[in-house]
Amino acid sequence: MKVSEMGEFRLIELLTKIAEGGQDKKPTRRQQLVIGIGDDAAAWRSDASLNLATTDCLVQGVHFTMEMTPWKELGWKSLAISLSDIAAMGGVPRYVLVSLGLTGDTEVDNVADLYRGMIELGNQFGVAIIGGNISDAAIVFISTTVLGSAAGQNNILTRSAAIAGDRIAVTGSLGAAAAGLEMLKQKMPLDTETGDPLRQAFLHPHPRIVEGQLLAEQGVKAAIDISDGLITDLNHLCQASRVSARVEIDCIPIHPAAKKAFGDRSLEMALSGGEDYELLFTASEDVIHKVNKSCPVTAIGEVVADKTGKVTLADSKGRPYKPTVAGWQHFVARG
Amino acid sequence: MKVSEMGEFRLIELLTKIAEGGQDKKPTRRQQLVIGIGDDAAAWRSDASLNLATTDCLVQGVHFTMEMTPWKELGWKSLAISLSDIAAMGGVPRYVLVSLGLTGDTEVDNVADLYRGMIELGNQFGVAIIGGNISDAAIVFISTTVLGSAAGQNNILTRSAAIAGDRIAVTGSLGAAAAGLEMLKQKMPLDTETGDPLRQAFLHPHPRIVEGQLLAEQGVKAAIDISDGLITDLNHLCQASRVSARVEIDCIPIHPAAKKAFGDRSLEMALSGGEDYELLFTASEDVIHKVNKSCPVTAIGEVVADKTGKVTLADSKGRPYKPTVAGWQHFVARG
Repeated sequence: MKVSEMGEFRLIELLTKIAEGGQDKKPTRRQQLVIGIGDDAAAWRSDASLNLATTDCLVQGVHFTMEMTPWKELGWKSLAISLSDIAAMGGVPRYVLVSLGLTGDTEVDNVADLYRGMIELGNQFGVAIIGGNISDAAIVFISTTVLGSAAGQNNILTRSAAIAGDRIAVTGSLGAAAAGLEMLKQKMPLDTETGDPLRQAFLHPHPRIVEGQLLAEQGVKAAIDISDGLITDLNHLCQASRVSARVEIDCIPIHPAAKKAFGDRSLEMALSGGEDYELLFTASEDVIHKVNKSCPVTAIGEVVADKTGKVTLADSKGRPYKPTVAGWQHFVARG
Repeated sequence: MKVSEMGEFRLIELLTKIAEGGQDKKPTRRQQLVIGIGDDAAAWRSDASLNLATTDCLVQGVHFTMEMTPWKELGWKSLAISLSDIAAMGGVPRYVLVSLGLTGDTEVDNVADLYRGMIELGNQFGVAIIGGNISDAAIVFISTTVLGSAAGQNNILTRSAAIAGDRIAVTGSLGAAAAGLEMLKQKMPLDTETGDPLRQAFLHPHPRIVEGQLLAEQGVKAAIDISDGLITDLNHLCQASRVSARVEIDCIPIHPAAKKAFGDRSLEMALSGGEDYELLFTASEDVIHKVNKSCPVTAIGEVVADKTGKVTLADSKGRPYKPTVAGWQHFVARG
């Protein structure tokens, strides 16, 4: 059945049932939902003293195509990108509101899958869908707004707290999402061992919620998630902190499957590909050492005292490196 | 300059400046913004014990066309529709996050106007823009998520609290928004006195924030805002409350300009037109009498003990009335 045959109100009823049936019933710690989906607004009690909110959006034809993206993965990813922003604050995500644009010929089953993907990820972190909106539209878009709070001691990670002398580090490895996108676009016939992690990295990213909280707990102050690409996001962090950065490209943890599938191109994917949703952060050598005991991170450079917010790259021999591909920026064609 | 010439990051910078420059600097009562626009998430301190959140969206080609809607009005309305949902809970709006889809050929000046429209309305109610997202898209869409809290005694208005025997009432008058849309679509040459209020009603709706809080304070329990049309929204309220409703059509406060411009058609506009953003509520005769002392409302019918959630209409002589136009429902053509 298509959504144009079902109509908005029955579709909302169906999605409410899926959300209420599929979501963990565990009472969220110290928070209590008073009104969930179905009223004019959601309502909840909270004793959080520092609240967080962020919004992000996936748009058909820009972030995804229907050919390349199964609906359940689309749901997962549409929540993952907002959760990643809460991770970059070191916060605890609690609730999500979903603003959905759908074409009338969309299959109801597909919309149900979209919700199932969101619920699956939400359940991993105790995040409940508490509201939303569905609108007819000429393209599909999914905008998610995640609400949360600071963890434990109210320490949060900001873009503006980097200081000269800090080391720069990242969680996980980079380049796999861009490699996955390229693989899907070109329909590259990779072996399962190489293709699977790349596909997963692009369609099924894991927001670093636990890692973000650990960073905040261990005394890290400055972080951003890598959505637009390492260089671009480091640039954002430097500009917000009024510092600059030097990155040693030979230290960058390129995802092994990206390296295997794309060879030398994988460095550009790691530098400018974006959508890895790893955390990029700065801290003293000591703090990074402490973090590394419970969460593997890789130091890739250092923060320098130059207010212009520049990012410079060099190899291990100190030779400057100039990337040939720009990071992601909406409205601007990639170089 | 077009947004494709400016790029996402400079556009965000510009809009941040407009928001920070244009927004009232008064510290929001009992709340304190720690991080606004420009980080991965916004952060604020709050001692609210009952929080509210709602999201709504305007989509090009569905809710508006560029020909009929100036950008500043589009900004105003995109915030108004979410504020109206907070009004329908009797709540206090605090913050808004904006998820924007724009085509690359959009003029930067127009996006600035869109923000100015939002800021103008936000300032009226102490609502600050604290975050957002901008994405390239084949159409323009504006999704707003408003965060707030319950007023005073934590009384909130819900859709599910109507009880048999309650009177049904509305704030303001109805039908002007639908009349305004019709006037704009048909380019009807109305005199200023008639045309202006209709145009304003459609493009520049006033969310009933103050009225909603007053209703909650005076003991009203059940309310919804009229966005899809009186009958449709009353139907939602009845279904959520497991009651039915009888409406006397001769009591409906049809907007005088709608009546003047459209004669008998104005009744259908009031019943099914939608987008009036007035509050529809139920309460005892006594409570409505109390409310009426500080806020003019009109009783239009009563809640009856029938769990099927039906809405029946009759004229003052008790003759049944059947509307010929269905209320607004996405994906479904209007009857």
